[in-house]
Amino acid sequence: MPDLIILGTIGIDTLETPHGKAENVLGGSATYASFAASFFCKPGIVSIVGDDFPKEHEELLKSKGICLLGIDKKGKTFRWHGKYEDINEAKTLKTELNAILSFEGNVPNEYKDTKYLFLGNLDPDIQLKVLNQINNPKLVVMDTMNHWIENKKPKVLDMISKVNILLINDGEAKLLFETNNLVKAAKAALALGPSTVIIKKGEHGALMFTKDSHFNAPGYPVENVKDPTGCGDSFGGSFTAYLASTDDISEKNIRKALIYATSVASHNVEDFSLNNLKKITKQHIEERVNHLKQIRDF
Amino acid sequence: MPDLIILGTIGIDTLETPHGKAENVLGGSATYASFAASFFCKPGIVSIVGDDFPKEHEELLKSKGICLLGIDKKGKTFRWHGKYEDINEAKTLKTELNAILSFEGNVPNEYKDTKYLFLGNLDPDIQLKVLNQINNPKLVVMDTMNHWIENKKPKVLDMISKVNILLINDGEAKLLFETNNLVKAAKAALALGPSTVIIKKGEHGALMFTKDSHFNAPGYPVENVKDPTGCGDSFGGSFTAYLASTDDISEKNIRKALIYATSVASHNVEDFSLNNLKKITKQHIEERVNHLKQIRDF
Repeated sequence: MPDLIILGTIGIDTLETPHGKAENVLGGSATYASFAASFFCKPGIVSIVGDDFPKEHEELLKSKGICLLGIDKKGKTFRWHGKYEDINEAKTLKTELNAILSFEGNVPNEYKDTKYLFLGNLDPDIQLKVLNQINNPKLVVMDTMNHWIENKKPKVLDMISKVNILLINDGEAKLLFETNNLVKAAKAALALGPSTVIIKKGEHGALMFTKDSHFNAPGYPVENVKDPTGCGDSFGGSFTAYLASTDDISEKNIRKALIYATSVASHNVEDFSLNNLKKITKQHIEERVNHLKQIRDF
Repeated sequence: MPDLIILGTIGIDTLETPHGKAENVLGGSATYASFAASFFCKPGIVSIVGDDFPKEHEELLKSKGICLLGIDKKGKTFRWHGKYEDINEAKTLKTELNAILSFEGNVPNEYKDTKYLFLGNLDPDIQLKVLNQINNPKLVVMDTMNHWIENKKPKVLDMISKVNILLINDGEAKLLFETNNLVKAAKAALALGPSTVIIKKGEHGALMFTKDSHFNAPGYPVENVKDPTGCGDSFGGSFTAYLASTDDISEKNIRKALIYATSVASHNVEDFSLNNLKKITKQHIEERVNHLKQIRDF
């Protein structure tokens, strides 16, 4: 049984940033989230790939102890081509959903008693279907994105009411709750049901809100941002994995989990695709966690 | 002798934000900076107004213990009309420089031995002229803005080389150093000479860089941002005033000063013009400083 179930996409990306281009590289929300999670616990993926999905990518995920039992296989693998003219904002040049279109979100029996669940960025109907197959989760964290807010807003709002923690980026929070103020957006999200709302702000860090408290997680100062793809996914995956590995969902530990997630995401942006996460060890993550303590001290 | 000299504009503003409109209200960088500074020490302004400058505004500044000896008087008062369609970005609808055009930046003899100097947003030629009249300053902090970077870039860069601390907002830092990365911008600024560079990021807080260290000051979570005018000026004024009042320019104390400045600026945005700063006491500032400790604790 995995320690943490991760739902999301697995795909092949072509990425263009001011620092270069990477063609046909491993990507997808479940890929980044599970790879990041693997530094802390044993994640199991729920996703789909095509028959063309390269064996080497499967081997890479397996080598990190990631359980692939929940990955379905059909047709062609999902593909995304993105370009960053400004390093902080991706423009989608092309999306080929392919296998995602026939994804049913079936959860293997071996996963059903897992206590921690990260519903990564995907169709809210699939998020709900996966959630309903888990017997008695202790913590459910969800992410979403513009596409679903624009096309399935009522479903996204309904999903938020069913989870413990909403992870959302600042632009999406403003879009979803029709406000320019993140405190107001967080309050609107909390009113739907979750006990905790976390707004990701990229280089500006992340804000955590509960009914009674607020935590401000700093951004890590990265000088060479090569490719921000997967940053939010690796943030969400490592955040939930830290909580699963410590089996402690107190507010105090959620704050610590956000610092660990900040460290992991800061490593992720320093090279294309998973290249940098492939190189680093837990020690590199701990070093930046310690640095994050120093940069907050007054 | 004032504890702190503040150079900047004094003007009459008309402000439009999504929350309303305020016509012909007190504004200007020296006004906000000195008012914010007055919570911590006795500031003395160097600036110019017109013969039309309302007596009540003078009385208000005097009532806060601000020294007006360095305010020249000539012609008509500087006027600015700004509009915020997005609450985070001011559009200038109209600027009437008026008296500013004939401002000579003469520093009264009574100010010349003051040890702390805040060169607020103004023509770098005037900033230099004022700096040169101070006998032996212990700490010189400067601010600037887009207008001077676009029109007098070599002079702005020269000024930076002459000060101890550069305060600059994120957009201006990117513009001045031609980079999208704030770590790179800070390094380029440090290379010019100042020991400390502080990048203000509005609601996202502020970043401090020295050659060896980094501090991340959180933004204060404000739900009702009514008018951000003067936010950077009140931040700079209270920051420098905190250092002057403690007469301690260690890195540790600079971090504390940034937290105090964050608190003051967060109060400033909650109403038009100086309306909220007029209402609050030192106690309100201390309360948010304490809250800022809690929101970054992990």
